Amino acid sequence: MSPPRITPVILCGGSGTRLWPRSRKPKPKPFLPLVGERTMFEATLDRCIDDGTFTNAVIVAGSAHVCHIAEQAGDTPTVIVEPAAKNTAPAIGLAAALLPTDAIMLVCPSDHHIAEPDAFVAAAKAAAKLAADDWMVAFGIAAVRPETGYGYIRTGEPIEGGNRVDRFVEKPDLETAERFLAEGGHAWNGGIFAFRAGAFMDELAAHRPDMAEAVRQAVAGGRYDGQTFHPAPEPFAAIEGESVDYAVMENTRRAAVVPADMGWSDIGGWDALRDARPGDEAGNRTIGNAELVDCRNVLVETDGPRVSVIGLEDVIVVVDGDEVLVTTAAGAQRVGKLSGAANQ
Amino acid sequence: MSPPRITPVILCGGSGTRLWPRSRKPKPKPFLPLVGERTMFEATLDRCIDDGTFTNAVIVAGSAHVCHIAEQAGDTPTVIVEPAAKNTAPAIGLAAALLPTDAIMLVCPSDHHIAEPDAFVAAAKAAAKLAADDWMVAFGIAAVRPETGYGYIRTGEPIEGGNRVDRFVEKPDLETAERFLAEGGHAWNGGIFAFRAGAFMDELAAHRPDMAEAVRQAVAGGRYDGQTFHPAPEPFAAIEGESVDYAVMENTRRAAVVPADMGWSDIGGWDALRDARPGDEAGNRTIGNAELVDCRNVLVETDGPRVSVIGLEDVIVVVDGDEVLVTTAAGAQRVGKLSGAANQ
Repeated sequence: MSPPRITPVILCGGSGTRLWPRSRKPKPKPFLPLVGERTMFEATLDRCIDDGTFTNAVIVAGSAHVCHIAEQAGDTPTVIVEPAAKNTAPAIGLAAALLPTDAIMLVCPSDHHIAEPDAFVAAAKAAAKLAADDWMVAFGIAAVRPETGYGYIRTGEPIEGGNRVDRFVEKPDLETAERFLAEGGHAWNGGIFAFRAGAFMDELAAHRPDMAEAVRQAVAGGRYDGQTFHPAPEPFAAIEGESVDYAVMENTRRAAVVPADMGWSDIGGWDALRDARPGDEAGNRTIGNAELVDCRNVLVETDGPRVSVIGLEDVIVVVDGDEVLVTTAAGAQRVGKLSGAANQ
Repeated sequence: MSPPRITPVILCGGSGTRLWPRSRKPKPKPFLPLVGERTMFEATLDRCIDDGTFTNAVIVAGSAHVCHIAEQAGDTPTVIVEPAAKNTAPAIGLAAALLPTDAIMLVCPSDHHIAEPDAFVAAAKAAAKLAADDWMVAFGIAAVRPETGYGYIRTGEPIEGGNRVDRFVEKPDLETAERFLAEGGHAWNGGIFAFRAGAFMDELAAHRPDMAEAVRQAVAGGRYDGQTFHPAPEPFAAIEGESVDYAVMENTRRAAVVPADMGWSDIGGWDALRDARPGDEAGNRTIGNAELVDCRNVLVETDGPRVSVIGLEDVIVVVDGDEVLVTTAAGAQRVGKLSGAANQ
């Protein structure tokens, strides 16, 4: 028999301080064309349009972003409007409770870059097969450097179509990350998951019964407005926010992982964005009116004023309206702490 | 008897590409408040206001800058409007031909920074005494580093109140500049001179007779409009432009030099401007809305947008209207070659 079709469940969250000043609270990272001409959100939808593999998407987002979703996705997807921001476990729960119990959900953040969409679809199909057998499936993203900014998944014993998860590892220090890379058997946890909707709700009920019940009540008391679904606010507001990693993945006895080597980046800062964009022979990347003299690996992005740069290496310059950011690539991780980013 | 009073002759020229984008063709460097609250031109006038030492100034400038001069100097000085830009020898010649022959002229560029104005006045008095004896006097500015961007003056035998000039040296290479500094006996030629007006015209007539005659005709055929003097354009237009160094100083047998150790800078680029401004304990200098994180010796100047800088050292960031400049201090000397600076 043909495999069940996959329902993309796309999570639009996050305040987006790390790509400030380009990404700002009213229009954060998912809704900006950061790599190429499509926005991160549009590219996320694009990856899930496939003849026979995917159904229409379900999007979970806060009310502040519904306008961007309507503009960029049209009215084909179902949009679930979160009554409050409660992290990923309740957000996924809303979709799981709304969908038929046998729906296979593929949970995707809306602001990740995937250079090889074919590899993404292949991993999605493998994950969906395991999810149909009631595994809680995480994408295990091929670790290509000793990154200390991500959680890791330690691969366990093989099962058909993947592996059990041995354990989830919090963000490691550099020494540990280097050991993971040298040893193998550790993949990045990129926040991409596959679940059967009913199985997810069962696991949620087993490990976070109050949250599962509140989610069910919010969906039962919700209402549709066209393709937009508004859960009941009261039960949802009472939930204690928690990530799906903590609430479900680290507790379930049926956690599985499928390998995904697909040119993935969470574009976690200006340095990562620079690396995701194609550069010229000197490694420079420019968007907008820019002149670079004797520069290497410099990123310039300007929405208007001309930017002239002389003699710099590994530096990022961003001009966005009333804000100008100049940072070393290494300093890019501190952008979120700047007054401008923090006080939006 | 008391010494003759000194007439400051202030030259306002130059296109000002090296401090682009702050300095632009319509309002170049002399008319901007680059160090402190006074413009370079205002500060030049301020240095020459002294009880009993100086007369009112004579300003020589192109017509494009008369409006700035009126705004910043009022109507006290005489303004000679150059009919065309012909370099410094003809510009000084206009003042020399217009002034009484026994006037003692102190020729000053209008865009230099002098940290110690008292030392300037002392050197001016010494130079004036020599000029009254018909010496052609250059300020010999104390060389404090092996600078390759300036001409040098090699000091010759002592005369009363100074020294003869042994010779003028073109901009040296670094090795030569380092030797000059180690040996001593070499000062920078900063383009500050003292002449008796009649003596200057005699020397000009001896070495550049056509130029001297054209200058005399331009002054004889000129007209006053209030305090503004317009030389006759036709004779002046025929002059072949030349610097006073080439036309007079390198040819006269009566070149003298007076030492001047006065915290001088020609503010020849953004790096020099940074060094002329007081910094905080990390060596950072900011004008306008700026936030610096983990920076050292960074200059930020913005006329509006907030500038946030992370992790940089020895870098200059300038925001001026529709232009943003980011350069290493070392790269600042190439600012004039940028499209924005070159195509004004």
